[in-house]
Amino acid sequence: MTDYTGPMTMKWWGWGAPDKTYALDARPKAWPWLKAKLGVTEEVHRPPVDSGAIQLPPARLAVPALEALAGAVGEVNVTTQAGARLTHAYGKSYRDLVRIRAGEVGNPPDAVVYPTQEGHVEAVLALAATHGFAVIPFGGGSSVVGGLEMPADQAERPFVSLDLSRLAEVLVVDKDAMTATIQAGMMGPKLEEALQAQGVTLGHFPQSFEFSSLGGWIATRSAGQQSTRYGKIEDMVVGVRCVTPVGTYASRPVPAAAQGPDLDQVVVGSEGVLGVITQATVRVHAAPERRNYRALIFADWAHGLAAVREVMQAERHPATMRLSDVAETAALFKLREGGQSSPARDLMQEAFKWYLRRLRGIDPGRGCLMVLGFEGGHDEVEHDLHVVKDRLEGHRAFDMGAGIGEKWYEGRFELPYMRDTLLDRGILVDTLETSATWDRIPALYQGVTDALTGAIAADGLPPLVFCHVSHPYHEGASLYFTFMARQAPDDPLGQWMRYKRAATEAIIAHGGALSHHHGVGLDHAPWTGAAIGAEGVRWLRALKAAADPAGVMNPGKILG
Amino acid sequence: MTDYTGPMTMKWWGWGAPDKTYALDARPKAWPWLKAKLGVTEEVHRPPVDSGAIQLPPARLAVPALEALAGAVGEVNVTTQAGARLTHAYGKSYRDLVRIRAGEVGNPPDAVVYPTQEGHVEAVLALAATHGFAVIPFGGGSSVVGGLEMPADQAERPFVSLDLSRLAEVLVVDKDAMTATIQAGMMGPKLEEALQAQGVTLGHFPQSFEFSSLGGWIATRSAGQQSTRYGKIEDMVVGVRCVTPVGTYASRPVPAAAQGPDLDQVVVGSEGVLGVITQATVRVHAAPERRNYRALIFADWAHGLAAVREVMQAERHPATMRLSDVAETAALFKLREGGQSSPARDLMQEAFKWYLRRLRGIDPGRGCLMVLGFEGGHDEVEHDLHVVKDRLEGHRAFDMGAGIGEKWYEGRFELPYMRDTLLDRGILVDTLETSATWDRIPALYQGVTDALTGAIAADGLPPLVFCHVSHPYHEGASLYFTFMARQAPDDPLGQWMRYKRAATEAIIAHGGALSHHHGVGLDHAPWTGAAIGAEGVRWLRALKAAADPAGVMNPGKILG
Repeated sequence: MTDYTGPMTMKWWGWGAPDKTYALDARPKAWPWLKAKLGVTEEVHRPPVDSGAIQLPPARLAVPALEALAGAVGEVNVTTQAGARLTHAYGKSYRDLVRIRAGEVGNPPDAVVYPTQEGHVEAVLALAATHGFAVIPFGGGSSVVGGLEMPADQAERPFVSLDLSRLAEVLVVDKDAMTATIQAGMMGPKLEEALQAQGVTLGHFPQSFEFSSLGGWIATRSAGQQSTRYGKIEDMVVGVRCVTPVGTYASRPVPAAAQGPDLDQVVVGSEGVLGVITQATVRVHAAPERRNYRALIFADWAHGLAAVREVMQAERHPATMRLSDVAETAALFKLREGGQSSPARDLMQEAFKWYLRRLRGIDPGRGCLMVLGFEGGHDEVEHDLHVVKDRLEGHRAFDMGAGIGEKWYEGRFELPYMRDTLLDRGILVDTLETSATWDRIPALYQGVTDALTGAIAADGLPPLVFCHVSHPYHEGASLYFTFMARQAPDDPLGQWMRYKRAATEAIIAHGGALSHHHGVGLDHAPWTGAAIGAEGVRWLRALKAAADPAGVMNPGKILG
Repeated sequence: MTDYTGPMTMKWWGWGAPDKTYALDARPKAWPWLKAKLGVTEEVHRPPVDSGAIQLPPARLAVPALEALAGAVGEVNVTTQAGARLTHAYGKSYRDLVRIRAGEVGNPPDAVVYPTQEGHVEAVLALAATHGFAVIPFGGGSSVVGGLEMPADQAERPFVSLDLSRLAEVLVVDKDAMTATIQAGMMGPKLEEALQAQGVTLGHFPQSFEFSSLGGWIATRSAGQQSTRYGKIEDMVVGVRCVTPVGTYASRPVPAAAQGPDLDQVVVGSEGVLGVITQATVRVHAAPERRNYRALIFADWAHGLAAVREVMQAERHPATMRLSDVAETAALFKLREGGQSSPARDLMQEAFKWYLRRLRGIDPGRGCLMVLGFEGGHDEVEHDLHVVKDRLEGHRAFDMGAGIGEKWYEGRFELPYMRDTLLDRGILVDTLETSATWDRIPALYQGVTDALTGAIAADGLPPLVFCHVSHPYHEGASLYFTFMARQAPDDPLGQWMRYKRAATEAIIAHGGALSHHHGVGLDHAPWTGAAIGAEGVRWLRALKAAADPAGVMNPGKILG
């Protein structure tokens, strides 16, 4: 059983546990390599401001509203304290980090409210219309698409951040149905700890796992790194409760039904615009007896893609199958190299490259790394690994063994910390993702890569853009892009917006999903119409008007 | 490749091809056994009326409306001919058959319109509001829940039956993405013929397969008999187009997304109340290299249920796993016995029963039959059969070999014909189905069985009620009930409604889905609120108002 105990409060100015950073210095080849790639000639140091220097605007909620909130949820569950307002002002997107690190917190919530029971949520939503405040639900606070702030054009509206972290119990683990009914505020580590104590797992491990909640996962249609085995969160939801300002949607948990449209799938992905997800019944699995994570190297991207597609269209799947493009493969090897380089180590590497090139016909400069992971029963892992590896190796792949795979598994929640370290050094770094059917994947990959590279280059900056297939499917895959450039210190948000817009327009043009698992938030809302069409928008607006007639729920998300 | 050619027009008065009936006489033990069970002492003969004797009410559409329709879709694609109106008046529910066999066709469509392109559908829906007629989409006409007629309280409204059978092409088979884009009116046999000619299959084979369409499957959330391998229709839809009176919903086919709620899952199951499904992109699979269908017998229902649950919660699944209860097992053996009985055959049967009882500890009177089917690649079928059978046999099961399984597979679309044969003999026979999580399955099973048995017995009639698990899942299963009784000739619909109501109330009380794959239609609409809750109903009404503001689409379905 994994031990998930320890402090779980996030930094106010960056990712993750306050006492933890990504030590770039421990990876001696990484920073010099990045500097060269990004054309950094002069090192800069841009730390976040001191929190004491941040002046929050005064809370706008009047005494009667605060008294009503305290009356509804109890005085201990309402705060206007500056620390709480600061940590609930933003999510963890690049835009968020740039602003909070600069001390720009112009519109934090006027109060943070912590419901401890579903009735509290109902009461707060009822007060919202009466007292004229909006409500923004807050799970783990890890949104990277602007899911947690008021849109600029509604900056004058007072609002409450509704933090679900005190609505966080596992209510039932049913080992007949292999379902668990869990309150929405439960964070990943506690949730898995409670389930694994009973021998089961949800199997949902997004990169944000340590700092995100069940309700947040459902609200944003999250995907875990083992989604190929366990599904995306929408596949796991068997029933859900969502409190809206006018009533509570509560589905009866059933495995499948034909009782009209599946409205659970309206709640999943609703990002707080209809109501507040308070609990869900989710599918659980026997905790795996065994894991096998390993790495393969493919001769090139095209062979890797073909291999992933073949495996997904056959009937034996791994838990994780993550294929990096050439640029990401190079970056991963640079980032991974710890300790000092030595003649012996360098010689080993050269020997390995020689082996790949001469004996396997793989040019290391064009190689693409795959992380391949299996988990489950002993026999099943054994059998499936054999079947899948056979198929993969038919596409010019070389098995590099368990070492790199296990290292990836150990460090699978670490990469977001690197963003803060790079921001300290004046580097813009962000990620974005999409999905498409296989027929569109090559053009989508090239289109987004070119759009990002071109937009950065148009600023006169050397771009670093890379990509991996993060979540493969029978009919397609998601593509996850990372892009880096030297930060434009005078207008970092304008700079970022140019790149983001270029990438998103390429995604739409090439038939990609607006997002595969980050969600829409404020950042993607301008493209919702392009992604789901005018009739889809009409339907969402109708649902919004029905569930939230006063328009108090998470303004501006999804629909703009 | 299966040959699906041949006449595919349905009987106007019953199920299936006009030249085909279920010959009860060829099964010499079946009718005597049923007679004894149902207390039939006097045989009756109640054939359908002659179609020539049916007087349809005059079509109510005025000349301008008919001219506008002809102008929109072409004269050859509009008819008010009596035969067309008759065959589009009802679906194939018990209520439908009782009425049409008696010549009661009080409210057939005023015209039948056959669009041959999506633009025709748009045009017809635009005319509906102008000319004051309603539109009821018609796929294969096999609805068993009253999906195809006007509700009684709107009997005065003129309406058009929109028959999609001329919008029936496979547009694209994409073997990269392993998807096919297909027009909604394509019927099962032609669809599989076209796909299998390219080496792929949709894998969707509901019992109505020969007489139902892709659009109908999607509109009703249909499930095929191999759903354990291929999924339910909602799992197969990668993208869908739905023409509403105010605009067309058209999703961009992607494997998974986080771009707000999944509105495709609003279209799936919408039963024509929002608009007309015109085409879909669906997941396809390599046509199976091999099938293996066989039968097992379990010592009792509880052992069978436990075995099904264990297999579904492990990671190796068959294509079909169908477990009959004791009563259905007995009925199946009686129906299956063809030819004349003989002393040799009787002796064999007694010997087999003795073997089961003495050597396997299975009391044949308590045994439960399972049909277990695998399909896929050669190695995969071999491996999975071995793994699954091992697990099943750990629950007091005995493998009866391939004979019964193959017979079941051959006759898998035949049983609906038997309804007509039994109606001829004055027997009420109907089926209904639900689903629930495993923790609720035993009580749901007992509750519905008792409700049906009790309601029939309350009429002073010997009941025959049986059940099977038709579609098992990780977290639960669907239960499929068949019930029979002597028909009350003076009030057959009132009689049926008593039994249906008793069963449905038991389903709701025991946490079952209102339907697992038949849909809501008119028959289940009174319980929609109980099944999806007041907030769910509010959301559906909002969607309906947004997509169909004039209320012309399939009145009364789902929402009453």
